[in-house]
Amino acid sequence: MRRVGENSIEYNNVYLLESSTISGPREKNAQLGKFIDKSYNELSCSEKTWEKAEIKLQNEAFLLALEKANLKSEDIGLILSGDLNNQIIASSYMARKFNIPHIGLYGACSTAVLSIIVGANYIESNIFNNVACLTSSHYATSERQFRFPTEYGGQKPSSTTTTVTGSGCSLLSTKKSNIKVTRATIGKVVDPNYKDVQDLGRAMAPAAAMTLRQHFEDFNVDASEYDLILTGDLSECGSIVFKDILKEWGIEFYNYNDCGLMIYDRKVQEVFSGGSGCGCCSLILNGYIKEMLSTKKLNKVLIIATGALMNPLLAQQKESIPGIAHAIVLESVME
Amino acid sequence: MRRVGENSIEYNNVYLLESSTISGPREKNAQLGKFIDKSYNELSCSEKTWEKAEIKLQNEAFLLALEKANLKSEDIGLILSGDLNNQIIASSYMARKFNIPHIGLYGACSTAVLSIIVGANYIESNIFNNVACLTSSHYATSERQFRFPTEYGGQKPSSTTTTVTGSGCSLLSTKKSNIKVTRATIGKVVDPNYKDVQDLGRAMAPAAAMTLRQHFEDFNVDASEYDLILTGDLSECGSIVFKDILKEWGIEFYNYNDCGLMIYDRKVQEVFSGGSGCGCCSLILNGYIKEMLSTKKLNKVLIIATGALMNPLLAQQKESIPGIAHAIVLESVME
Repeated sequence: MRRVGENSIEYNNVYLLESSTISGPREKNAQLGKFIDKSYNELSCSEKTWEKAEIKLQNEAFLLALEKANLKSEDIGLILSGDLNNQIIASSYMARKFNIPHIGLYGACSTAVLSIIVGANYIESNIFNNVACLTSSHYATSERQFRFPTEYGGQKPSSTTTTVTGSGCSLLSTKKSNIKVTRATIGKVVDPNYKDVQDLGRAMAPAAAMTLRQHFEDFNVDASEYDLILTGDLSECGSIVFKDILKEWGIEFYNYNDCGLMIYDRKVQEVFSGGSGCGCCSLILNGYIKEMLSTKKLNKVLIIATGALMNPLLAQQKESIPGIAHAIVLESVME
Repeated sequence: MRRVGENSIEYNNVYLLESSTISGPREKNAQLGKFIDKSYNELSCSEKTWEKAEIKLQNEAFLLALEKANLKSEDIGLILSGDLNNQIIASSYMARKFNIPHIGLYGACSTAVLSIIVGANYIESNIFNNVACLTSSHYATSERQFRFPTEYGGQKPSSTTTTVTGSGCSLLSTKKSNIKVTRATIGKVVDPNYKDVQDLGRAMAPAAAMTLRQHFEDFNVDASEYDLILTGDLSECGSIVFKDILKEWGIEFYNYNDCGLMIYDRKVQEVFSGGSGCGCCSLILNGYIKEMLSTKKLNKVLIIATGALMNPLLAQQKESIPGIAHAIVLESVME
């Protein structure tokens, strides 16, 4: 493990041992639904409240990842997790069920990648043999907390994103597997002085562009290095801004996609600008991307998870919305 | 850096290079006020909102730590920070002012120690030469968010704690100083099935006791190892429960105190059960403890920061309040 350039890290021995994905109905019924391990047919997941449903999703994602990896909970040295709820309660309440040390993280929708970056350090330095990196989001907990009660039935502009209902778990390990975590770039908080809480993709785009540029500079690479460059949840509006910024900077890039654009079937499903939430990047990373790397359909993927560090109270205080973007590289090492 | 026992880590080269503390008036006018670097006479800190006041506290704590260490912001490789506000906005909005990678953390009031634990890994593995670990809390932002609007004038039971207004910054470094971070024990989420949101000390006490026991077991030490064993913010009600649990377990310990009991002058100030909040442990650690270690009045201190992972919404859903406690050891290495 060593620092590369200004803000990046190179790992030698961090493996993505196994991963799991659990979702709500909308994600299952979309184009990449077949890569989701388990889904619920209704948002409540048979729980009495939305929050308890989200806790259940995280809990089950963790247990499923253990099962797939043939591990027991006592084999996990550390859980690193976060979500969008106030006081990241989906993560804390999930962790109380297990006798495992816990680090709570918050990077808004970038948390899936942030947890892997922080977790990788503990694997690479041999402090723990296995760590679990978990995130979740839930359409109904987010709508209530960040927007309006769904019962209000307020209309939405087309720039709004749709919060993904789902949880993903990445088990990092010193034990060899087909996929390695090889690189990371830790993001900086970037505030483009943008205030529209109904258009978070645009607010996060500059942070994503800066992290991409930093990553290319730090490793002295360009887009040809990767089979796929993936942003977290910029969705339609944000991706356009992201591409515009990079064009302005003269940074060529291709093989690009955004988890928020991939997760739903936007021709059929009413999801406005696309998907968002901690679960968005997490479902794509731990589902589709993991499968593509396992089967060598992709070899080297750069994932730039994005987070809008907004808070309804500061928006009411006329504050702008800062963004952050953390990046990791996953590589297929199958022979 | 190596794992010790089940959940603990030993560090060899992590120094507390410098630290800083900024507070509101109540903390300054208390018994340990003389160890606080800078204070405001009013809670607003000349800002228009409580939230902006808290952002200012964190911002100034960071700048002051840099000044004391004779460093510039570009010398800092990483900021690790968290606070109690929804979406840890004091931390994110502070970080947007600097061109420095940021990791957002949430461990409720245990975040001061959690940030040092996560930060120490980046120092020990030589990824960054200097990292800044920051936390804050503010009486008025917390009252509004977790309890009632202060204008409501609701009466409080004597078990309530008083949220500390303040921010502390710990600069960790590979550069030698008089104080080393030598040990850490990462806490587990412990839920004692306790539901009184007006008595958080009691809810956190079992987590603190479990972390203390784990720490003693992992390093094969007892209380005689330390000049001082300090819990975060159990305050009066919680400390009693903490001591009772340890007595029941047959664990002898002495030289014990709690930051929540130390921070205010409870004979004169109306603070109920004592102080709490991310700023509580942070002000004591970065102020008083740092000074005692620098002057060799203390040599080896175990700090167990405690956090109640509560959320008003889940309390309304009749959920219990889980706690967590993370521990570090600071040692004077002055010759």
